[in-house]
Amino acid sequence: MANLVEERKVVESGKFSEWYQDVLQKSELADYAPTRGCMVIRPLAYSIWENIQQHLDQKLKAAGVENAYFPLFIPESFIAKEKKHVEGFSPELAVVTHAGGEQLEEPLVVRPTSETIIYHMFSKWIKSHRDLPLKINQWCNVVRWEKRTRPFLRTTEFLWQEGHTAHASEAEGLATAREHLNIYVELLRDLLAIPVIAGPKPESEKFAGAKTTLTMEAMMPDGKALQIGTSHLLDISFPKSFEVCFQNDQGELQSPWCTSWGMTTRVVGALIMIHGDLETGLVLPPAVAPKQVSVVPIRKTSDDKAKFDQFLNKILTTLKNQGLRTILLDEDSSPGNRFYVSEKKGIPLRIEVGMRDVLAGHVMVAPRLQIDEDKKKKVLIDDLGQFATEFMKNFQAFLLDRAESFLTNNIYAVNDFVEFEEKLEKSPGFYKVFWCESQKCEEKAKTLQSTFRVVLERFDQNESIQCFICKSKATCKVIVAKSY
Amino acid sequence: MANLVEERKVVESGKFSEWYQDVLQKSELADYAPTRGCMVIRPLAYSIWENIQQHLDQKLKAAGVENAYFPLFIPESFIAKEKKHVEGFSPELAVVTHAGGEQLEEPLVVRPTSETIIYHMFSKWIKSHRDLPLKINQWCNVVRWEKRTRPFLRTTEFLWQEGHTAHASEAEGLATAREHLNIYVELLRDLLAIPVIAGPKPESEKFAGAKTTLTMEAMMPDGKALQIGTSHLLDISFPKSFEVCFQNDQGELQSPWCTSWGMTTRVVGALIMIHGDLETGLVLPPAVAPKQVSVVPIRKTSDDKAKFDQFLNKILTTLKNQGLRTILLDEDSSPGNRFYVSEKKGIPLRIEVGMRDVLAGHVMVAPRLQIDEDKKKKVLIDDLGQFATEFMKNFQAFLLDRAESFLTNNIYAVNDFVEFEEKLEKSPGFYKVFWCESQKCEEKAKTLQSTFRVVLERFDQNESIQCFICKSKATCKVIVAKSY
Repeated sequence: MANLVEERKVVESGKFSEWYQDVLQKSELADYAPTRGCMVIRPLAYSIWENIQQHLDQKLKAAGVENAYFPLFIPESFIAKEKKHVEGFSPELAVVTHAGGEQLEEPLVVRPTSETIIYHMFSKWIKSHRDLPLKINQWCNVVRWEKRTRPFLRTTEFLWQEGHTAHASEAEGLATAREHLNIYVELLRDLLAIPVIAGPKPESEKFAGAKTTLTMEAMMPDGKALQIGTSHLLDISFPKSFEVCFQNDQGELQSPWCTSWGMTTRVVGALIMIHGDLETGLVLPPAVAPKQVSVVPIRKTSDDKAKFDQFLNKILTTLKNQGLRTILLDEDSSPGNRFYVSEKKGIPLRIEVGMRDVLAGHVMVAPRLQIDEDKKKKVLIDDLGQFATEFMKNFQAFLLDRAESFLTNNIYAVNDFVEFEEKLEKSPGFYKVFWCESQKCEEKAKTLQSTFRVVLERFDQNESIQCFICKSKATCKVIVAKSY
Repeated sequence: MANLVEERKVVESGKFSEWYQDVLQKSELADYAPTRGCMVIRPLAYSIWENIQQHLDQKLKAAGVENAYFPLFIPESFIAKEKKHVEGFSPELAVVTHAGGEQLEEPLVVRPTSETIIYHMFSKWIKSHRDLPLKINQWCNVVRWEKRTRPFLRTTEFLWQEGHTAHASEAEGLATAREHLNIYVELLRDLLAIPVIAGPKPESEKFAGAKTTLTMEAMMPDGKALQIGTSHLLDISFPKSFEVCFQNDQGELQSPWCTSWGMTTRVVGALIMIHGDLETGLVLPPAVAPKQVSVVPIRKTSDDKAKFDQFLNKILTTLKNQGLRTILLDEDSSPGNRFYVSEKKGIPLRIEVGMRDVLAGHVMVAPRLQIDEDKKKKVLIDDLGQFATEFMKNFQAFLLDRAESFLTNNIYAVNDFVEFEEKLEKSPGFYKVFWCESQKCEEKAKTLQSTFRVVLERFDQNESIQCFICKSKATCKVIVAKSY
């Protein structure tokens, strides 16, 4: 079906941003909250998040991870224990100074992430190599005081899961960080139809306190990169600062290697942006759509109600038997109105049925986006179950194909900064370049609002390839792009 | 099987409290956090909470409730908008005064409950009677700065769901508050084997801002009451303060009647206390137990390993086919150790298997508590599936029967305060009394650390029954008890 995939063009960023804000309101996905930088996640978007949670949670449990819950408030002194961590997070902290009508002796930080409090607990729970590996996850809210916010993509408070593991060796830790990144990559592809480029972050873009940060970068319709999840191997100094140590199988005390990895409600924003239609708004992949099919009866007063309802029931039973999440839109409003409701909720397939269809024993099906020669078509009631199930598979594949083509089509290679500067404006997208990893060249890239997103390849010392900016020896091949 | 129900006696409060703290640690249910009044919910307890969430969430969705998410931080001025609400909650608030390195213009309260911010959003979403009823729920964390805390039962931060609905009429609102209380009551009975006494709170014990508060009170093994969930019909002034209003079907503007209802992680504490065994620790009802069966192979080096493993696989497959949540304890530690692990995790049924059992084609089953004449018994492998499934049903019924008998056996009637004072010390429990609802008599009851928990019956003006304390006209029959 590759030949049917509509070629998407990169859209202009300002216009796209307007479209996004508009879809959030019109489709009742989110609303602005009275708290600065916060949003309300409305039922449609929340149930997308629940579907993501459910699938991810299952995969994490299958990987031996157990869920737990740690406090929202972290004593301020904990954050200060790890030097890089405190530098990274200090500017973003929200602090409780008063509680129960009194000033607190020690202020409490509202968690921006939970390594510090979790390592404090690990130091109580981990004694011997027999306690390792330890794999814990929590689903919770975190707060980072962001200057510029945008619903889902960057909000002061957001929801996420944060996983934390401890291992006896660095190799096992790194393998686990990779394993969990792969869990995300698969989930994004299979459930959300979102392709990503995954790999390590450059040194300067690592998580505050990490030895290695692995990232996944997705391409938004305006060609910008969105970091959609990360997985870190922590510096050994981090657990050490919290006195986490265990007796290894030689009887010596050592610190474990720890990983942490998280995926946030930002992914809901990515989903909306990547599959959305600039003309008609929200489009959801069937695998994650809260409702996969809408059924719109088009009734007339002259209809034989009993016969109509019997046929309608047959439709609903057929879809239910296929395990499809279905909504019946049978209110007293015009068919056009109800088509619009189905459209703005991003429901993959709409089924229309009038008395003529009842008598003829078929229904009219209308896909949310045209994926083959038919904009609408008749399907016999006896074929409906199989048709709808196959449609979901095809529609899911169509969205993934389209997103993959879009990503592939907008990755460019450039050899020098002049070429990069010229091309970036005309053709927003991901740029594959060779880079020396110097701060100076990083600053230069930032003059074009672009950053180094993900390392594709590292070169060994002997290779002589030039940095695309300074022409000195490059150490890696990397994606540079504008980003959210 | 009623005759087999072990009669439980009320236990002394101090000793019971020690037992509870001990079980939390020993069974790795919870741990003390470095943040004052907070706890860490460890995987065993968290997965109990997940089971409760899953069942309750399903029931709420079936009742037409949709999940959403509202911000953690509430502008301080919002709390102040409703007079009774601010009086009730002010002493318990945690306040963020600094964020992003600066002092905030308006401090932010960490939500103690979300009526205020949700009604602010309702005022944007509700315009017409066609927008009603509106039924929203959120699963989240809340913070109340409590002076005395105890893991699960009363912690500074806790997890809960809070449901919020809006209705066109008071009658519909009240019916919904009742419907949701009933959902809780059924969940407690069917999933957690916890019987409760449900009904309205007296005026003085209502939620800050409620017209009516409905409560469920469970009896703990020391005879004390534990309020285990509430459902409120709010004063009409509450949504009015937030300018929530709609055009009714006559075209007039009016405020909707709102309800709110919540169940918290406190219920996990109740579960641990109610079914726990004072000698052997944690006991979990099968319906909510993360693991329902443990399988303990007892191996010798002389065993035919292939044959043993084949038999073990048959056991595991049999249990899996019955849909039972099973854990295999096959580590390199003594059988006694592994029996202890199974016991301390509260697993309802343990299955032991040695080479002799393999050869004979049976297993040894040991229930967590003896519920019939057998402490342990042999079950043929071919009967194991049916046996285990029936055992779960019986064990669940046993725990509910036992808890119901305990509750019924420790409800007393007294006619005057002297009798109450004498009896309460000797026989802690729930006391059914007639009461005038005066503050004076309430104060008197408090001198014995007892409070009025739940109204059983209201009398109309014509009935002349005396208050058990002041002997003036009683207005209700009520449960008075010591409580958590």
